[in-house]
Amino acid sequence: MTQYFGQYLIRQSEIFFTSELSFALVNLKPVLPGHVLVCPKRVVPRFKDLTKDEITDLWVSAQKISSIIETHFKGDSLTYAIQDGKSAGQTVEHVHIHIIPRRPKDFEENDQIYTEIEKADRKPRTYEEMAAEAAELRPYFSN
Amino acid sequence: MTQYFGQYLIRQSEIFFTSELSFALVNLKPVLPGHVLVCPKRVVPRFKDLTKDEITDLWVSAQKISSIIETHFKGDSLTYAIQDGKSAGQTVEHVHIHIIPRRPKDFEENDQIYTEIEKADRKPRTYEEMAAEAAELRPYFSN
Repeated sequence: MTQYFGQYLIRQSEIFFTSELSFALVNLKPVLPGHVLVCPKRVVPRFKDLTKDEITDLWVSAQKISSIIETHFKGDSLTYAIQDGKSAGQTVEHVHIHIIPRRPKDFEENDQIYTEIEKADRKPRTYEEMAAEAAELRPYFSN
Repeated sequence: MTQYFGQYLIRQSEIFFTSELSFALVNLKPVLPGHVLVCPKRVVPRFKDLTKDEITDLWVSAQKISSIIETHFKGDSLTYAIQDGKSAGQTVEHVHIHIIPRRPKDFEENDQIYTEIEKADRKPRTYEEMAAEAAELRPYFSN
């Protein structure tokens, strides 16, 4: 199976979760440890393009993933965000939920996180780092 | 029917949408025009507390509401966010999705919006202003 994230062909090694209609991948430029993305398998740009079944599968998957992510990365809260359209900061034309585990005072201002989400100058990780993180997460979701 | 938003009893005049398991209200301190909130009727603090039926109803409602909101407030994009827990900036202990219609360059930096979401010093609107906005939106969702 090949999976596209917008125009990008995603390596299987970056995907740590799949369901019937959704998948989740680790992030090239996480704003905090454990920042992951959940997407519908179908490549559509806007949230309004999703069917009811896709919405359900996407957000039930997000709930499942976020519980694991919050615990694994030792957070006590979570930020969920969708940048739905260009004026909202969307850069990849494929619906995706940002899930970010949060800890007390991880940013000086609580919502500074969102400013970070779109900063282009974050250092990209190596594919090896990304594959290692996905491999760490994948066992939580096996079978 | 009385509806609580966390510990706050909400006026019917502030609610412009209800479904089987969710409701939507206008905002006391919108960060941009058309900033509304969608909540499950059941008062629970965290997204992980929701059942599959509640998740589906919540996000299908959010999709329906956001299409109207985007058009009505002349946006071309939308920001969706959930502050899920205190370290993520949550102040009312009741799951709620922020939906904010976006326009090109509505903020100098695209994601400045999120910093605004939690600023406590935004000027609250009057109940009359809020009721008027809800009354404007309600007809879109009748029957």
